[in-house]
Amino acid sequence: MRATVMYGAGDVRIENVPDPSLIERTDAIMRVVRACICGSDLWPYTSMAPSETGQSMGHEAIGVVEDIGADVRTVKPGDVVVMPFAFSDGTCEFCHKGLQTACVHVGFFGNNGINGAQAEALRIPLADGTLFRLPVGEEDALMPSLLTLSDVMGTGHHAALAAKVAPGKSVAVVGDGAVGLCGVIAAKRLGAEQIIIMGRHADRIALAKEFGATDIVSERGAEAVARVKGLTGGYGVHSVLECVGLDQSVETAIAIARPGGAVGRVGVPQHEAIPSARPSFYGNITIGGGPAPVRAYIDELLPEVLEGRIDPGRVFDRVMGLDEVPDGYRAMNDREAIKVMVNPS
Amino acid sequence: MRATVMYGAGDVRIENVPDPSLIERTDAIMRVVRACICGSDLWPYTSMAPSETGQSMGHEAIGVVEDIGADVRTVKPGDVVVMPFAFSDGTCEFCHKGLQTACVHVGFFGNNGINGAQAEALRIPLADGTLFRLPVGEEDALMPSLLTLSDVMGTGHHAALAAKVAPGKSVAVVGDGAVGLCGVIAAKRLGAEQIIIMGRHADRIALAKEFGATDIVSERGAEAVARVKGLTGGYGVHSVLECVGLDQSVETAIAIARPGGAVGRVGVPQHEAIPSARPSFYGNITIGGGPAPVRAYIDELLPEVLEGRIDPGRVFDRVMGLDEVPDGYRAMNDREAIKVMVNPS
Repeated sequence: MRATVMYGAGDVRIENVPDPSLIERTDAIMRVVRACICGSDLWPYTSMAPSETGQSMGHEAIGVVEDIGADVRTVKPGDVVVMPFAFSDGTCEFCHKGLQTACVHVGFFGNNGINGAQAEALRIPLADGTLFRLPVGEEDALMPSLLTLSDVMGTGHHAALAAKVAPGKSVAVVGDGAVGLCGVIAAKRLGAEQIIIMGRHADRIALAKEFGATDIVSERGAEAVARVKGLTGGYGVHSVLECVGLDQSVETAIAIARPGGAVGRVGVPQHEAIPSARPSFYGNITIGGGPAPVRAYIDELLPEVLEGRIDPGRVFDRVMGLDEVPDGYRAMNDREAIKVMVNPS
Repeated sequence: MRATVMYGAGDVRIENVPDPSLIERTDAIMRVVRACICGSDLWPYTSMAPSETGQSMGHEAIGVVEDIGADVRTVKPGDVVVMPFAFSDGTCEFCHKGLQTACVHVGFFGNNGINGAQAEALRIPLADGTLFRLPVGEEDALMPSLLTLSDVMGTGHHAALAAKVAPGKSVAVVGDGAVGLCGVIAAKRLGAEQIIIMGRHADRIALAKEFGATDIVSERGAEAVARVKGLTGGYGVHSVLECVGLDQSVETAIAIARPGGAVGRVGVPQHEAIPSARPSFYGNITIGGGPAPVRAYIDELLPEVLEGRIDPGRVFDRVMGLDEVPDGYRAMNDREAIKVMVNPS
């Protein structure tokens, strides 16, 4: 079958690789119906050291179960399923608490040697704990929005929860990528009164406004901080969704939070230490977040998608076949595309 | 009158200074009945650059109101009052939410040129919002425990709240100073099931055990982390009270928190950036805390002291007159004393 392999920064190839096969009795084999390229894939795309073996890429997908191991109980061949970006056993203490990304058997697709979803098919470890069966056919019109449940919509929701978004609160979203845009949706549906999107790309900002953003801040650094404070009575916002992960973005996130506010981090940190130790301390600002347990959030978000109350699939502004995926990376990295959906068939 | 002035690292002097006087109509003048030396005073004691003007020291006190400005309504001359380490107006949005340390008019006693409480008397700005009248006489036997309501007991409580301590949880307290010891009391009264004190001073550990610590970890760094994980089924604790503020202590605090856990910071940060940006992210560990709004916590903690349910005054293991205060700094810095109470009269 064909699959996406990254060999170093800027070096993404579509290769013929062996078909996946069942290894453990808890595995499933999933044919990929839709996959996509994630903003977090751009970190290795711009920084990965050359590798001889390469890394199989992709961690977001909807697929059809083709085969299951002897111990798999909750999905069967033919089921249309969403695959969260992390696999998890569904039975450990952390899974029971809804923190599947801390499962004692957790693994991340397309990372550290684990197979990725930008491929025609892949092996799903711990299929019962990982896969979520969808009540739709594989060509359903809602496929783009359903696909976001594998990562970006659940991740935006996680940022909003970590930032303690609640009815009537003021919110800022740092980062106008797909996760930030889904963060706007999440903040809106959790009742935020004011939603400030921090970004500078016209297409993304337009979408943010349609999703519910009330204010746009396109400045950066100290100017951005001053603008947000000006929009919030001088104090800053109650909740900040940090959807980038860079030093400057986290510093800005902390600076625009009002005293007693909260920053929800979902941008994968590109630094060793969280900046602004003193401002965050003196402001009693809570810093939370991490890899979203999107598996836990499907229960809450799926009905919203099925009933049309949210439409996060609009973050996909380009659809490609598998062979075009290397150009998809380039397009997202050049900010030509917000998010690329991949149709491997 | 006599007051404590610090002129640089290790250079603490008792000097004759002008008596305080009313400046604003919202001021009160307070004669100091009991003050104390704080662990946070040891940071300038070990690092302050030489200063020609010096800094008036001390931010914890119980006193008797001697005079009030024309607009003061809630206290009157003769009242015995506790003075939180920060003054606050009691009327702004942040005071109303119980975050008085973010009051729009906040100031910190004994800091940035503001007068301190290691003195015979001091001016209290915003007396109505700041002072809390106590239902006791100035020589009450509970004076040591009541004095902790001005900082360390409220600060330990704040750490426990920020660390999300709740019934049945496992807790670790990083730092065995007075705040850490009060953190043990706070964790116990909030229902923690397991309380691990991290420290290595026999006297402090003994007191921690009496306050409710169930386990002692005297190792540091990686060994400390391994020990805590060993005591908690391999996962770490739900809640960490970080009562030091150094790189290593914060790093340890994050490393011993279980996934989904929380670190409550009350140690004044001695670093620019919070270490372990990635471990805290991947573990979905929440980092909260800051200067405790001890004014808000007096309502909850005072009855506990008055009814003898908690006895935080036991952290004071030395009582001195004002002239001995320089030696009190030395004794606390040399870990000869846990916390020094000062009787200025």
